[in-house]
Amino acid sequence: VTVSELGEHPLLARILARLPRPGAHLLVGPGDDAAVIATGRNERLVVTTDTLIEHVHFSRTWSQPADIGHKALAVNLSDLAAMGAIPSWALLSLALPGDLPVVEVEALVDGFAATARAAGVSVAGGNITRSPGPLMIDVTAAGDVASRKWLTRGGGCPGDELWVSGHLGGARAALEMWQAGEAADEGCALRQRRPEPRIRLGHVMARTKTARAGMDLSDGLADAVRQLAEASGCGARVEAAQVPIEPGAEAWWRRHDADPVDAAVRGGEDYELLFAVPARRGGRLRHVRRQVAHPVLTRIGVLTRDPAIWLERDGRRTPWPEGFAHFGA
Amino acid sequence: VTVSELGEHPLLARILARLPRPGAHLLVGPGDDAAVIATGRNERLVVTTDTLIEHVHFSRTWSQPADIGHKALAVNLSDLAAMGAIPSWALLSLALPGDLPVVEVEALVDGFAATARAAGVSVAGGNITRSPGPLMIDVTAAGDVASRKWLTRGGGCPGDELWVSGHLGGARAALEMWQAGEAADEGCALRQRRPEPRIRLGHVMARTKTARAGMDLSDGLADAVRQLAEASGCGARVEAAQVPIEPGAEAWWRRHDADPVDAAVRGGEDYELLFAVPARRGGRLRHVRRQVAHPVLTRIGVLTRDPAIWLERDGRRTPWPEGFAHFGA
Repeated sequence: VTVSELGEHPLLARILARLPRPGAHLLVGPGDDAAVIATGRNERLVVTTDTLIEHVHFSRTWSQPADIGHKALAVNLSDLAAMGAIPSWALLSLALPGDLPVVEVEALVDGFAATARAAGVSVAGGNITRSPGPLMIDVTAAGDVASRKWLTRGGGCPGDELWVSGHLGGARAALEMWQAGEAADEGCALRQRRPEPRIRLGHVMARTKTARAGMDLSDGLADAVRQLAEASGCGARVEAAQVPIEPGAEAWWRRHDADPVDAAVRGGEDYELLFAVPARRGGRLRHVRRQVAHPVLTRIGVLTRDPAIWLERDGRRTPWPEGFAHFGA
Repeated sequence: VTVSELGEHPLLARILARLPRPGAHLLVGPGDDAAVIATGRNERLVVTTDTLIEHVHFSRTWSQPADIGHKALAVNLSDLAAMGAIPSWALLSLALPGDLPVVEVEALVDGFAATARAAGVSVAGGNITRSPGPLMIDVTAAGDVASRKWLTRGGGCPGDELWVSGHLGGARAALEMWQAGEAADEGCALRQRRPEPRIRLGHVMARTKTARAGMDLSDGLADAVRQLAEASGCGARVEAAQVPIEPGAEAWWRRHDADPVDAAVRGGEDYELLFAVPARRGGRLRHVRRQVAHPVLTRIGVLTRDPAIWLERDGRRTPWPEGFAHFGA
């Protein structure tokens, strides 16, 4: 059996089963958006790592080096945001093809550095090595969170409302436009090239204990709802009519007779956040929405005791779409 | 100008110049074996990241998957050892070719996990992604060190003795043997496949303040002496006759009319440690050597006020060999 044949989630499960039993300082271990480690009596470090690989996660045809540098850090900051952490430092590993122009490396580092500076992130170290194949950027990012003030995927309960930030599907639609040889809608192109980690939103939702569970939408809403519901031991019901879709993406899919809700729900790389919020915390949620005006928050559904996950369309239950599969299995 | 034409060290200098000004919590920033970060009043976190790439750092012809998994963690633990830190946790990122058999991934993870377990390292997280090219393993490792009890490359002073652990050149000689189509000497093959991070030695040398500077020999002694001397604002004199050479490697090079000292000094991937020890700390050093019997420590030279670096052979000064160049520039 090969990696492609098995597929990402089963492979991940097999890997997790082989790791050593974690030490007591590991408060949240592998399998969530990031890990939480006790580094002192009250200090909690949140750490995550994510890799961007040319031809898999980006193309130098469609993204400038500065965009790639930005995105390599942003996708990690998004994982920290999903846990409610404030980013603090990062490590940058570059595997570079020998024939890559140095000016492109510099532009990539500039994009990374600008995003680090804006987020108050120190670049603590890293390494460079030669790649015999594609350009690769591996980033580790760490942040701080107060004791017990973090969010995991597994904290949700039946009856909790599902809220999602921003508008979905733009990043996927931009790729489709480029692959069709068209100029991408500007909003969609920005979502693909310059995703914005929702650091403040994640932090406030966690610190105020408004949300009970959270995760980011790196692999799309279809994947995120499934993961959050499963980790919380729940099912879910999502209202198709409530899913907030990026306007340029919706227009694109309508023009091509594709179902915008299905496409937006399956599309990855949005880097918005999904939260489970107890229904009686409406007051806290209004307070959060006053404090964090951007991005918008939309209620899309509810966690259920029934373990199934449904997409409701005009009062009819339809099967929840499958998520984005990295290994194409 | 391409990455290959510029070469590793100048490229690294250009990248470092573009990073944001580090925050006050970054006690040791980029450019050393690892970074030191203040995570609380007295907590110090030491972090490092290193990548192994197929066809650059290993070959699946010469190394078993379990060896590759071991080495991916060991090279990072070696960086922590060079700083005097006790390893605590690690993150594992895998970029996997789609046609890779799952059993090989499992064996690789088993090798990684066994080394983690032996070193008391928790695997806090990581990620898997598809690689359109070579197999890649990116690891971040973190450890703890007491306040002000770490070693950097830059702490040495003129007159400090240079001490190196173990025997050098085995890892390079094993590659040469395999490339010549021969079975490798067992000792050399072990050095290439199963480098042992010198965790206890690095920790005791730092904690007892026996050494004033230290670094690991990932890129060979030629590179390490140059980096430690330059970072310390010194030159160095190394006695050729004192360089400890792996016996199987020495025999191999003699058989092929190569100069064993030159080859052992240039050879990378030994993962031994180099220290600068003030001459008057001989008593502390004897104490360390009693506490840590393995690996052996050998005095090979001295840091000098004169900024040049010399290899002394039979009382004659010869130029210090150039280090190992990742980009082949």
